[in-house]
Amino acid sequence: MKRYRKKRAESSSDDRAADIYRVAAELIREKGFDATSMSEIAQAVNLTKAGLYYYVPGKEELLNGIVRYGMETIEHGVVVPCQAIEDPAQRLREVVRRHTLLLTQIGGAITILTDEINGLSPKHRRAIVAKKRSYLEFVRETLEILKLRGLLRECTVGLLSMNIFSAILGVARWYRPGGQFEGAEVADEVADFVMAAVLKA
Amino acid sequence: MKRYRKKRAESSSDDRAADIYRVAAELIREKGFDATSMSEIAQAVNLTKAGLYYYVPGKEELLNGIVRYGMETIEHGVVVPCQAIEDPAQRLREVVRRHTLLLTQIGGAITILTDEINGLSPKHRRAIVAKKRSYLEFVRETLEILKLRGLLRECTVGLLSMNIFSAILGVARWYRPGGQFEGAEVADEVADFVMAAVLKA
Repeated sequence: MKRYRKKRAESSSDDRAADIYRVAAELIREKGFDATSMSEIAQAVNLTKAGLYYYVPGKEELLNGIVRYGMETIEHGVVVPCQAIEDPAQRLREVVRRHTLLLTQIGGAITILTDEINGLSPKHRRAIVAKKRSYLEFVRETLEILKLRGLLRECTVGLLSMNIFSAILGVARWYRPGGQFEGAEVADEVADFVMAAVLKA
Repeated sequence: MKRYRKKRAESSSDDRAADIYRVAAELIREKGFDATSMSEIAQAVNLTKAGLYYYVPGKEELLNGIVRYGMETIEHGVVVPCQAIEDPAQRLREVVRRHTLLLTQIGGAITILTDEINGLSPKHRRAIVAKKRSYLEFVRETLEILKLRGLLRECTVGLLSMNIFSAILGVARWYRPGGQFEGAEVADEVADFVMAAVLKA
């Protein structure tokens, strides 16, 4: 029982941290990292400044936390489930659909900050770069299998993978929850767009 | 002769301003707008601070100038020449190719700043939003013509146009001059990618 309660407490603390990351990411994206203070972030998530420091020991840790949260969300929500899909076309479609859907759920600001990692400490930057590289490799391998099977449109695979990520990450530029389109609809359209561009006609 | 000389002087002053915009955009993108000082920008473009103020009266005007330069470059280099192309598929392909090529030439930072116009004065923001809207309308009309002619893949046109801009603007995320790929090669691949995604197989 004690263990169960501990797990619940941890998980609710994780949820609270995720909330903080999402809200802080929006603020940082709007005002810039330097111009955003811990007090403003605390206020935006309804915490005292001391309360915020309970979850995040400082501003640099906050940025590290946001980017780590962004990458881990992708790892658990996209890479792990898609590694189990045998068919390469189905796997690629599911990577694009799941990543786009997650992006509409966790918000574009986290995606954009995860993309711009200049502000991270060297240790955290290395960890994020490694995670990104392994994700990119996973997508490239899938494209290479499609190519070997004669299913890929004629193109440069290295540039194709960049175009695929452009299509996914571009949603962060314009998507707003509660707007004209549901996240699931956007995710399906981006997946259709990418698959039409990837597969031989 | 005098007029010719005046024109030359104007044009070289325009070139200098364009240089300043490009370099300042890179600095602002790296450090954030608030953290970038006019002195740093002056130093980066080999001007005294007074020299910089000759071209740009202040930091807000600098941001307005960068974004205006970015939009005008697209207008003159993409919209105007492509309006003259009758065939809608050829027109769309040329929009994507030219925009991507320009982006590899003027640099991703200007593109990204033109996308994030929160920092602009209301008057300038309105002008940029109007220019963006008319560009988007131009692309949408081209897609509607393709649809009427039965050439478009089945999809939501509003989302398709967003996906097209994702593919173009995404190049700003990763392209570096002197890297693995030439700008012209990237522009062709993005155009092929988009056309494969847009046209019915």
